Amino acid sequence: MSNKIYHHPVQIYYEDTDHSGVVYHPNFLKYFERAREHVIDSQRLNRLWNDQGIGFAVYKANMIFQEGVEFAEVCDIRTSFIIEGKYKTLWRQEVWRPNAIRPAVIGDIEMVCLDKDKQLQPIPNEILALLV
Amino acid sequence: MSNKIYHHPVQIYYEDTDHSGVVYHPNFLKYFERAREHVIDSQRLNRLWNDQGIGFAVYKANMIFQEGVEFAEVCDIRTSFIIEGKYKTLWRQEVWRPNAIRPAVIGDIEMVCLDKDKQLQPIPNEILALLV
Amino acid sequence: MSNKIYHHPVQIYYEDTDHSGVVYHPNFLKYFERAREHVIDSQRLNRLWNDQGIGFAVYKANMIFQEGVEFAEVCDIRTSFIIEGKYKTLWRQEVWRPNAIRPAVIGDIEMVCLDKDKQLQPIPNEILALLV
Amino acid sequence: MSNKIYHHPVQIYYEDTDHSGVVYHPNFLKYFERAREHVIDSQRLNRLWNDQGIGFAVYKANMIFQEGVEFAEVCDIRTSFIIEGKYKTLWRQEVWRPNAIRPAVIGDIEMVCLDKDKQLQPIPNEILALLV
Repeated sequence: MSNKIYHHPVQIYYEDTDHSGVVYHPNFLKYFERAREHVIDSQRLNRLWNDQGIGFAVYKANMIFQEGVEFAEVCDIRTSFIIEGKYKTLWRQEVWRPNAIRPAVIGDIEMVCLDKDKQLQPIPNEILALLV
Repeated sequence: MSNKIYHHPVQIYYEDTDHSGVVYHPNFLKYFERAREHVIDSQRLNRLWNDQGIGFAVYKANMIFQEGVEFAEVCDIRTSFIIEGKYKTLWRQEVWRPNAIRPAVIGDIEMVCLDKDKQLQPIPNEILALLV
Repeated sequence: MSNKIYHHPVQIYYEDTDHSGVVYHPNFLKYFERAREHVIDSQRLNRLWNDQGIGFAVYKANMIFQEGVEFAEVCDIRTSFIIEGKYKTLWRQEVWRPNAIRPAVIGDIEMVCLDKDKQLQPIPNEILALLV
Repeated sequence: MSNKIYHHPVQIYYEDTDHSGVVYHPNFLKYFERAREHVIDSQRLNRLWNDQGIGFAVYKANMIFQEGVEFAEVCDIRTSFIIEGKYKTLWRQEVWRPNAIRPAVIGDIEMVCLDKDKQLQPIPNEILALLV
């Protein structure tokens, strides 16, 4: 288990916004994934997929959208997680706008590991060692 | 309140998939939004925004991803909703693959109405009349 | 060679727009691909990929963006093409807004066929038969 | 006129790829826009839009896709530009994979300035001063 909070910056570009003037809500799930990849390390994820055929998949995502995020802002994606049993990792992820006093978006994300046939697999030891 | 289930077809294109071979998970939130727009009617949404400065925003989204969805599949997005009080609409939305016996993805989406200053507004009567 | 013009409708959703109020320009390349998939048939593309390991790839795209396209518009994507030699298909694709007198966007797209090692392959006979 | 080449790194995430295993081709236009925003400065773009109602728009884009780009690669987006007359900026932008000997993607992008009514405007002096 970990109490560490990881920080990942995300700048908001045209591609992120919609015609209401703020970030289009599904994009926050993208930022959360980017941030998780920096915790686990994309090269490691890549090897895990190519060598062992194991990938991470989002099983559940509970999102609260408290505030709009605007073009050109650089947000701080804050990530922490716990490991639950042999199969699950639970991630708390938040989007913080510059100078904010509360998160604009909160996500509770449950990840599992799947093989190439989409069958559930235990979290690889290599990842456990990294995350614990 | 409504028990009606609305159906909206979504074909999976290259743009929808990722290198794991299935639909990239945030995209399901896009399909849900498209389906809701067909329930409420995009032209009506557009007038509401241009004339009254009122738009719908996703406040919460609870998603369960049970199964991958593949390129070239035409899925059925099934949508129902209830109105809760003066401010909230609660939407149950599901992604059904062809010939499926259970939904691939389930979403519980809570929508609110905001004005152009992002302040909460009651659901407009025009929409209530439509949805009840 | 073909003079036929294929029509494919595309409705503009929130996901398509950006904070300037119109469709975000890279998205037109998505609509062009959707339209081409309806000309060639996604199921056929899928079999070609799974059975023979052959896929289509965009090699060149020359785009002119003449006019913005707005939320809730249903555009007509107009597609025609010619086959050039054994390797190339050249596609002229246009985005027409409702009641327009000229296209909002024009694309000239050059497609080639690649195998799974990304090596150039002649256009499969099955596709030639379809397109000629 | 400038001969300077600007460098902007882009890491490839799940969101960028498609089921063929490489980056989905319209996404390169996104990376080019991100890179241009770092040349011009997003905060400046934002003020220009909010204070003067002037924005940049892509008028033409000629793209050549020479090579696929894969998950987890960190690419170098190389950008240079020239100013042509009072209205146009011409941008040469390239995607370089790690250790590459030629660009994977080449784009020639023509940008113009538009006001909020989508009418052509001369390039603002503030931008000219920055770019020359």
